[in-house]
Amino acid sequence: MTHSFLSVQLQKGAHLFLYVSHTILIPSNQKLQINYGGTIMANYTKTTIGKENRIELHEKLSLTGAEISINELPAGANVPFVHSHKENEEIYGILSGNGKAIIDGEEISLSTGDWLKIAPAAKRQFFASDISGITYICIQVKENSLEHFTAEDAVID
Amino acid sequence: MTHSFLSVQLQKGAHLFLYVSHTILIPSNQKLQINYGGTIMANYTKTTIGKENRIELHEKLSLTGAEISINELPAGANVPFVHSHKENEEIYGILSGNGKAIIDGEEISLSTGDWLKIAPAAKRQFFASDISGITYICIQVKENSLEHFTAEDAVID
Repeated sequence: MTHSFLSVQLQKGAHLFLYVSHTILIPSNQKLQINYGGTIMANYTKTTIGKENRIELHEKLSLTGAEISINELPAGANVPFVHSHKENEEIYGILSGNGKAIIDGEEISLSTGDWLKIAPAAKRQFFASDISGITYICIQVKENSLEHFTAEDAVID
Repeated sequence: MTHSFLSVQLQKGAHLFLYVSHTILIPSNQKLQINYGGTIMANYTKTTIGKENRIELHEKLSLTGAEISINELPAGANVPFVHSHKENEEIYGILSGNGKAIIDGEEISLSTGDWLKIAPAAKRQFFASDISGITYICIQVKENSLEHFTAEDAVID
């Protein structure tokens, strides 16, 4: 997919900026067909993960819309830096154990079954509790990228 | 964000179709600034899930780049339909139990720790095994929507 800006000079000195994500030139006697995901490839990929401290699935599964990692912090450990993101929102799900996140200075306690969405700009850091490790999934997606989902995007056979 | 098609009639009967995802009208003496995720809102949302058969997180967490569901099929049960997608790739992770997927007629056995990415067009159906239920996460994202991730998208404090 090619992304570009198209700038159109209007009267009175205004500019109309169009952020163009798809450009298709077709003769007028052909039907317009847009195939998302038209790359020829197998329709699925599969991997199996074990007990590693951090697994990243983007390469393993040839993901195109997300990075997904499974992370394990032992008791007393923490991610050794604070970070934010440029474009991506992150969704964290606690699979087991206990710990906390500090988001923009606010402390949020976390245990199994908790889910968090964190906006790109927020500064975040994750910690296991002192007496229990924590295992969590982190899903990284581009903010505002989802257009339709479930019933609106599904085709039932 | 507003999405629309702009059709421009060219000479000789051709059409130029522009898929416009951002349109910004600014005076020519102002600097163009595009802020992804510029909506003013809390920088995170949190929810806790329990033992329900299916939980959808999009509304609960105000997700903008994914729909995420946690699904549980009891032993012997299956999703009662075959489906594919228009735009979205799906990533499935088996959190516990055993079962199988049938993808475009191919049977894939599934157990804890297995992860699958399924392309939009693939026809899929999920089954618990006859002797064990299966719990899985399903992550729906727009195919080809992720531009940068992890080191390229992160800002370390």
